[in-house]
Amino acid sequence: MTRSLIVYLAASRHGGGMKIAVLGTGDVGRRIASRLVELGHHVTLGSRTADNAAATKWASETGERASHGTFADSAKSAEVVFNCTKGEHTLAVLEAAGAAALDGKVLVDVSNPLDFSKGFPPSLSVANTDSLGEQIQRAFPGAKVVKALNTLANPLMVRPRDLPDSHHTFISSDHADAKVTVRALLESFGWAKDEIIDLGGLDTARGTEGFLLLWVRLFGAMGTPMFNLKLVKLEG
Amino acid sequence: MTRSLIVYLAASRHGGGMKIAVLGTGDVGRRIASRLVELGHHVTLGSRTADNAAATKWASETGERASHGTFADSAKSAEVVFNCTKGEHTLAVLEAAGAAALDGKVLVDVSNPLDFSKGFPPSLSVANTDSLGEQIQRAFPGAKVVKALNTLANPLMVRPRDLPDSHHTFISSDHADAKVTVRALLESFGWAKDEIIDLGGLDTARGTEGFLLLWVRLFGAMGTPMFNLKLVKLEG
Repeated sequence: MTRSLIVYLAASRHGGGMKIAVLGTGDVGRRIASRLVELGHHVTLGSRTADNAAATKWASETGERASHGTFADSAKSAEVVFNCTKGEHTLAVLEAAGAAALDGKVLVDVSNPLDFSKGFPPSLSVANTDSLGEQIQRAFPGAKVVKALNTLANPLMVRPRDLPDSHHTFISSDHADAKVTVRALLESFGWAKDEIIDLGGLDTARGTEGFLLLWVRLFGAMGTPMFNLKLVKLEG
Repeated sequence: MTRSLIVYLAASRHGGGMKIAVLGTGDVGRRIASRLVELGHHVTLGSRTADNAAATKWASETGERASHGTFADSAKSAEVVFNCTKGEHTLAVLEAAGAAALDGKVLVDVSNPLDFSKGFPPSLSVANTDSLGEQIQRAFPGAKVVKALNTLANPLMVRPRDLPDSHHTFISSDHADAKVTVRALLESFGWAKDEIIDLGGLDTARGTEGFLLLWVRLFGAMGTPMFNLKLVKLEG
């Protein structure tokens, strides 16, 4: 299936967009939700309560394709679900959304298991021989978890062309069809096809989550979170 | 102190080179040792026994500035020590070299705590809230440990210009003077000044060692170990 066909099919299903739930009303969630609305999708920003102030404000400011609701309500009516919650809350949030609402759906996991309990820089609450992505998949075996976008600052996730050079992002999943959907969404954000590196199965999320251990140090050394990595390879 | 002065001082101390011990006779150790000899240093390749076959062969093939010896003998007579042993052996090797032989010296730690006990890809035997670099520093408080070069394949460590684009490498240490020495050595390998990123104290080795969790996955996805990362930053 070509890219244009995938995007066309996705966009045509609801007169110009998919129904997408974005769980989490923080910077990452609002940034991704706004970009998806801009691209023509119908987005529900999910939060713990139906009257969450940040979600209400976001929906009223973002236009007619933007709405908000509880984690459960937003996930229930969506075709694709983005998890943009803090890693420490992720499993509880998805529990609140409910396994039935996630069943058979693409679940894009943008979270990182950052542990700030000992201050900054954070360590990881799960690392090395397991990952939060895999924990989610085990807890919700009916969902099609794709780890994506968790290795860079949220403005760059959705506007990769803002950086002055090519750079790379990663996807990890045990579900090939879900990867096709996520690739199409990333390409619609502005990522070039060859900038999206398929690392393999969801266990490779141990790699992208583990990269956060370097990212938090680079954040200090670079003096800005607005950077990403480009992989440079020997030719021939 | 300018770069040229540092290199001059280093090179002039022994009529054209420093006395350097490289511990470990594997690919990494031999590659770094050969490059150091090529750059005019006097290098002893250290191994468990004085008659190690790989070390004997290397010394006889590499010319008059190349010698070999036990870990203890090579470290004793060196000004700078490179640890190029496998992470699982590192602490025992340094114990064999002896704390006295390392006292006050720059110890460049190139190792990674890779754990292959469950097959490939490896996990890490220490990660997240500690690092092998820090374990070495705690075990040998008299040494000046600098974590360096542990994030890329050994041919690229010593010939960074082989890649078709700029790319980055990292140093972590609690010893500012030792970082100056290591920077000068890396620049002599071909690294540009702004390609060497000082991450801060030795605890930042948790970041570069943690990156290995991604590196081993990228090795699969890129189809070659001959790659490295370039950090791309938003301008302005």
